[in-house]
Amino acid sequence: MRLTKFFLPTLKETPAEAQIASHRLMLRAGAIRQASAGIYSWLPLGFRVLKKIEQIVREEQDAAGFQEMLMPTIQPAELWRESGRYDDYGKEMLRIQDRHERDMLFGPTNEELITDIFRASVRSYRDLPQLLYHIQWKFRDEVRPRFGVMRGREFLMKDSYSFDLDYEAAKRSYNKMFIAYLRTFERMGLKAIPMRADSGPIGGDMSHEFVILAETGESEVGCHRDFIDMDWISSDIGYEDDLQPLVDGFTAKYAATDDQRDGEQEKALGDDLVVGRGIEVGHIFHFGNKYSKAMNALVTGPDGADVAVEMGSYGIGVSRLVGAIIEAFHDDDGIIWPEPVAPFRVGLINIKVGDDACAEACGNLYEALQAGGVEVLYDDRDLRPGVKFAGMDLIGLPWQVVVGPRGLKNGLVELKERKTGERQELSIESVLARLAT
Amino acid sequence: MRLTKFFLPTLKETPAEAQIASHRLMLRAGAIRQASAGIYSWLPLGFRVLKKIEQIVREEQDAAGFQEMLMPTIQPAELWRESGRYDDYGKEMLRIQDRHERDMLFGPTNEELITDIFRASVRSYRDLPQLLYHIQWKFRDEVRPRFGVMRGREFLMKDSYSFDLDYEAAKRSYNKMFIAYLRTFERMGLKAIPMRADSGPIGGDMSHEFVILAETGESEVGCHRDFIDMDWISSDIGYEDDLQPLVDGFTAKYAATDDQRDGEQEKALGDDLVVGRGIEVGHIFHFGNKYSKAMNALVTGPDGADVAVEMGSYGIGVSRLVGAIIEAFHDDDGIIWPEPVAPFRVGLINIKVGDDACAEACGNLYEALQAGGVEVLYDDRDLRPGVKFAGMDLIGLPWQVVVGPRGLKNGLVELKERKTGERQELSIESVLARLAT
Repeated sequence: MRLTKFFLPTLKETPAEAQIASHRLMLRAGAIRQASAGIYSWLPLGFRVLKKIEQIVREEQDAAGFQEMLMPTIQPAELWRESGRYDDYGKEMLRIQDRHERDMLFGPTNEELITDIFRASVRSYRDLPQLLYHIQWKFRDEVRPRFGVMRGREFLMKDSYSFDLDYEAAKRSYNKMFIAYLRTFERMGLKAIPMRADSGPIGGDMSHEFVILAETGESEVGCHRDFIDMDWISSDIGYEDDLQPLVDGFTAKYAATDDQRDGEQEKALGDDLVVGRGIEVGHIFHFGNKYSKAMNALVTGPDGADVAVEMGSYGIGVSRLVGAIIEAFHDDDGIIWPEPVAPFRVGLINIKVGDDACAEACGNLYEALQAGGVEVLYDDRDLRPGVKFAGMDLIGLPWQVVVGPRGLKNGLVELKERKTGERQELSIESVLARLAT
Repeated sequence: MRLTKFFLPTLKETPAEAQIASHRLMLRAGAIRQASAGIYSWLPLGFRVLKKIEQIVREEQDAAGFQEMLMPTIQPAELWRESGRYDDYGKEMLRIQDRHERDMLFGPTNEELITDIFRASVRSYRDLPQLLYHIQWKFRDEVRPRFGVMRGREFLMKDSYSFDLDYEAAKRSYNKMFIAYLRTFERMGLKAIPMRADSGPIGGDMSHEFVILAETGESEVGCHRDFIDMDWISSDIGYEDDLQPLVDGFTAKYAATDDQRDGEQEKALGDDLVVGRGIEVGHIFHFGNKYSKAMNALVTGPDGADVAVEMGSYGIGVSRLVGAIIEAFHDDDGIIWPEPVAPFRVGLINIKVGDDACAEACGNLYEALQAGGVEVLYDDRDLRPGVKFAGMDLIGLPWQVVVGPRGLKNGLVELKERKTGERQELSIESVLARLAT
């Protein structure tokens, strides 16, 4: 993509309303623009990151044997009256009346709707488990939306649901998601620590939050020091194998969110205790038959008797992750995208637009990198080099290739790694060999 | 995908509320399920089709040089008050008050929001054109939602917007979308005829609808017979070339939607006139500076004076297309998906589950087809062959491979093309060679 054609409205000023780095940087980098309080438009740069995160989430859900579907944003109130949550949810639920004055709502989550689909379709234990997910926009009408996409009102969530015959089977589904979540976050370059968590208003008796440590985290968490440098999951997983030992390995040591912290356990840890602020990026719940009982989601068991199914739900904040990743990876100059979610892998800078040799070298590099499957943003704007360097640092592409007349005389261009700031002078062939892998 | 693991809740009964084929077949095939009037959940089978259509639309937008972004579903009323449409829109607009009693709405379209983004970011004619699109759920609160996803309330739309300095430039953007739309529909196997159309409540002076002829179409249209067998666009398009002659070629002959029909012109056509019912699948508009003037979206022109930009908007009903395609392609037995949008390309039927030879042959075919990049739905359920044949016809995959003990004795399986009903006995190797292209 040529920058002269790319819609990238970066800001020179730091927006006053943005209190944390990710919010500030996303606005400055032209990744998002506020439509109204807590509601954002994703401009092309931010949209590309959002789609990459969504795709990683999708691939790991599919790998774990969950099937994608899509439920609507607008739900009928009657289902939420069945579960009893229509009143419980309070003002966070965006309530709507349609033209016929029927009570509707913008879904903040989908337990009721998926249970309704399940109970209409599945009648026998033989058709269990059912493992379903969707990636859809949700709405929670926060009193004071802030921190940009980290705590917005309209947000993109991946939510999965499992339906099983009994607790043991439900545990197997829970474990699949536990492991799939570790893999998902790891693929984005994040260390997300699974922490014992309160099951909250959603109800249930087994729950883990996946938490990134970052200074701007929304709450204080405590965990064993070993989690900081833990070896996560890099090998392939057999999702039909017994995952319990693996899950036990990740949950044996102390790790707890704010309201689950235990003073005595923490004291006993001594120097092994790490206390820091955490950002929640995923949350998994087993909640038994809370909804299936209330909503009459029954299957016939092996003995012929009806059983209310065991359910779990599993959420990843897809749009929130864009902000969380920036909180984890940025410096004073801007964003530092991990490669798997970067909007482009390479930023190509022509520092002397109008110079024939520079134009030719850049044109060749641009074509060759794209031919090698590399996503390139080519800054072909006629601006001062300093402006272009600062802009490229701000938007945080992993690699920068800088082409100028002086280097070209010796057949050299500069390769800069955004993360380390390391620069190397290389021939064009070497740059291609390094990047077009 | 093995059918024993796939969530495919097909219905035996024809749902009474469904009046047209696509609605009936989508419910029966387990592609969708109604959440409330005019609002549907997309079950895995339907979701796969929706995603394929979305991807074709996206690729053709990108090819035409439009950039993808994503605007939110919930918009502030104030923008619509600026354009004057807040009152005009009437009860079709889903109006919402948030917890602070601010007036919001679920976007039925996005002219106001994109104009707001544009005016905040672009100041000079040098940064034109701007060509942007998004694919997002919309809501129109129809009085009587019906015909399933063909006239739902919550629906997925691709809407593009162009911003240009003057009419001539705007015409170039309009022409890009005109051609991109022909290519988009053609890739789905549809003949969508561009018809002169009323610009409707959106305002403007140049407008075409893209219409499929089908018995269940919502309105009567008239066109020259030549459109029926017209050669559409199969070669690559140079979107920076002058597209006017190409567009002129497609618009020279008579083709008009209901309210644009002309009795005299139709009479003059004589036997060359075709009158039929049409389904609108796309609509493009040029509307000049209607919104840019009202919302003060100005750029500085070459002479230094401020100019209200010329705009166009361009919509494709992505979710509606799923229904429209079925209206165009079905028979008494079920859906007949065109290959580019089929949820799976091949249905593999084991007619004797429990027979070792059948299981082995099916297993091998399943693996080999997938290894060859073919999407396969493998019916491994222990049901009567008749039930499995009927089910496979219903869901309409383009190819069926039927494996039974009798054929296998001679090393043969049956290949059936859903569209023609043609069956052939072939060796497993021949089937693989035919399908794994």
